[in-house]
Amino acid sequence: MQLTPIGIIHSPYKQRGDAPRQGRLSDKEITLEVYPRFAAALKDVTRCSHLIVLHWGDRANRETLQSRTPFSDAPLGVFSSRSPNRPNPIAFRVADLIRLEDNRLIVRRVDALDGSPLLDIKAYASAIDAITDAASGSIPTSLEGISEGRLPHA
Amino acid sequence: MQLTPIGIIHSPYKQRGDAPRQGRLSDKEITLEVYPRFAAALKDVTRCSHLIVLHWGDRANRETLQSRTPFSDAPLGVFSSRSPNRPNPIAFRVADLIRLEDNRLIVRRVDALDGSPLLDIKAYASAIDAITDAASGSIPTSLEGISEGRLPHA
Repeated sequence: MQLTPIGIIHSPYKQRGDAPRQGRLSDKEITLEVYPRFAAALKDVTRCSHLIVLHWGDRANRETLQSRTPFSDAPLGVFSSRSPNRPNPIAFRVADLIRLEDNRLIVRRVDALDGSPLLDIKAYASAIDAITDAASGSIPTSLEGISEGRLPHA
Repeated sequence: MQLTPIGIIHSPYKQRGDAPRQGRLSDKEITLEVYPRFAAALKDVTRCSHLIVLHWGDRANRETLQSRTPFSDAPLGVFSSRSPNRPNPIAFRVADLIRLEDNRLIVRRVDALDGSPLLDIKAYASAIDAITDAASGSIPTSLEGISEGRLPHA
């Protein structure tokens, strides 16, 4: 299972610590540059207001199975959290599409580090992807709680 | 960028054509078997009602850049759709977690084919992942529309 980079991400976030706690808290414009050989797959992409963006966390630690989060006192299993460190560091973000310039997507709400390899882009569909009443005991239920690093139920 | 399988999916869907049009339309129980060496990453997972599940589409065509969908008359770019065929066939589903049995997650709303390699599991968080007003010109806005293969705005 060998991944092929479909492009590269240009971002103002140069290293860990520069980025906010979650992509949804980022208001910076980020550029998803799709390599020319994959540009045909961008046909019709401007029909979408939001896109699922998968990128490779090339600076992640793949050995990490449990880690502390901003919202927990004890380490959580990485499959129970959104830790960037995990066996396959495939980062998932929902991007707001701002505009398309040739083979470059300008988006917001993505906090990828500069130079991250781009893996996939998909249409986000509210009917299948928006679960509004999910209970997560590991992540606060509001963006404010995430921003402030509250405990999940605080 | 080499992926490591963290487990394997056991599913009643044996081949393409067995599965419904979208995972959200599947009511079958599916088993996500996590291999023992990664089981520590499952700690606290039952705090989550919903999980992001990434699996490898090992029967996908990675050369496909445009394809017809049930909701379009003309081919769409695969980055504008949810086609299983794409350069990096990383399938994304939001699963309803039913229960955990040792290192096996029993879930619903996942239509993966039997034997698909499991790549990643993450907590789904409504505050960051549920965009209720996304406009997708390539996918119907209701599950009924998806089920019936309507045009997006029909």
